[in-house]
Amino acid sequence: MSAGRLIGVGVGPGDPELMTLKAVRALNAADVVAFFAKAGNTSHSRTIAAQHLRAGVIELPLHYPVTTELLSCSDAYRETICKFYDTAAAQIAAHIEARRVVAVLSEGDPLFYGSYMHLHARLAPRFTTEIVAGVTGMSGCWSAAGTPIAQGDDVFTVLPATLPEAELARRLGDADAAVVMKVGRHLPKLRRALKTSGRLPRAIYVERGTMADAKMIPLAAKLDDDAPYFAVVLVPGWEQQP
Amino acid sequence: MSAGRLIGVGVGPGDPELMTLKAVRALNAADVVAFFAKAGNTSHSRTIAAQHLRAGVIELPLHYPVTTELLSCSDAYRETICKFYDTAAAQIAAHIEARRVVAVLSEGDPLFYGSYMHLHARLAPRFTTEIVAGVTGMSGCWSAAGTPIAQGDDVFTVLPATLPEAELARRLGDADAAVVMKVGRHLPKLRRALKTSGRLPRAIYVERGTMADAKMIPLAAKLDDDAPYFAVVLVPGWEQQP
Repeated sequence: MSAGRLIGVGVGPGDPELMTLKAVRALNAADVVAFFAKAGNTSHSRTIAAQHLRAGVIELPLHYPVTTELLSCSDAYRETICKFYDTAAAQIAAHIEARRVVAVLSEGDPLFYGSYMHLHARLAPRFTTEIVAGVTGMSGCWSAAGTPIAQGDDVFTVLPATLPEAELARRLGDADAAVVMKVGRHLPKLRRALKTSGRLPRAIYVERGTMADAKMIPLAAKLDDDAPYFAVVLVPGWEQQP
Repeated sequence: MSAGRLIGVGVGPGDPELMTLKAVRALNAADVVAFFAKAGNTSHSRTIAAQHLRAGVIELPLHYPVTTELLSCSDAYRETICKFYDTAAAQIAAHIEARRVVAVLSEGDPLFYGSYMHLHARLAPRFTTEIVAGVTGMSGCWSAAGTPIAQGDDVFTVLPATLPEAELARRLGDADAAVVMKVGRHLPKLRRALKTSGRLPRAIYVERGTMADAKMIPLAAKLDDDAPYFAVVLVPGWEQQP
């Protein structure tokens, strides 16, 4: 009987075809498949991977106790979410100790802004771990938009829209290319920061980037300020494009 | 007979298993497979994709006329490389006009610092194009190193090591997480910039990230300044890691 281990499996940005061969093989080899989900919702990562789950595999849903309704910097949030990750890690550890291979599904890439890394940090010191890199959500977005994002010696940056307006403007102006994440209710502020930094004419608004119902338009042509939490804004670089 | 079209196919960072299902299917459907290579060398992207090329597919190697021996900002370089991309685009256009599906292989992700985008910019105005997003080289590196790179509201940046030392130091200090590319002969300068910005203790040096002979060590423990052009340095963020 082989030893148990942990595999962080990137399942890509949404299109099940953007899973890697390695991810599919990891799911075929897994005894347990764990995935995050909002309480009461289906898991995005499980939906993406669904057709590759083995019959009879043990499924371990990990339901977030909180989402965006608590400020992520509050003590209450920290305490709640830490307990959640501790409990999830303990559940997974029990499976690994029983010599099972546990695959944790991760939208996009496991170590790039993914929840998986909270489990990895807790379990990697104790168990053998492996990471299956995945196509990130942002790659999915600029590919769906057909927009070259960065080239040559471009400086590229990823910014959360949660930053203060002046800092967003400074950082947008300081980079050749950028992706702004977690747009949601920050869109009016982001729009002003893009204008200040001179980047508004290049900005592309993307919603549900790799879904069949994806929506992408130049931000300057978007007339309302409605945006879901996971919308992104692309600011392509490569200004000397021939 | 269906119409010709262009597909930019990301083949991922090096491990053939990190190709996506969509990339494999695109190669199965292609009449022509084009790939970049240094003159006299085999093509990395073709090596990655080799086992998925159909028997009898038309192969179109695109040999770079220059590599790093000319400064990329020189006029001579620009002129030579522009002519090269013009010629390559014309060769591909002829295939598309003959109603063939042309897949252009791209290491990593086609629209993220890839040569493919030079062809895309020339051909997308005239022909139907499709992009198959890929796992980037940097995802391959941090996954192989098992290093969470960015989390939560981290600001993440990608920097070329070609930047002046003071600018590297400023930008490294200004970001929570960073990946520095094209390290090569710039390693001594980069090391000083990491020291100035206080990021040296976190920096990880990675060579041939997703190859079997990958080499990764804390940069502070690397005693020499030898580095190939494609080596990268990872500076993980996520300082409040539990």
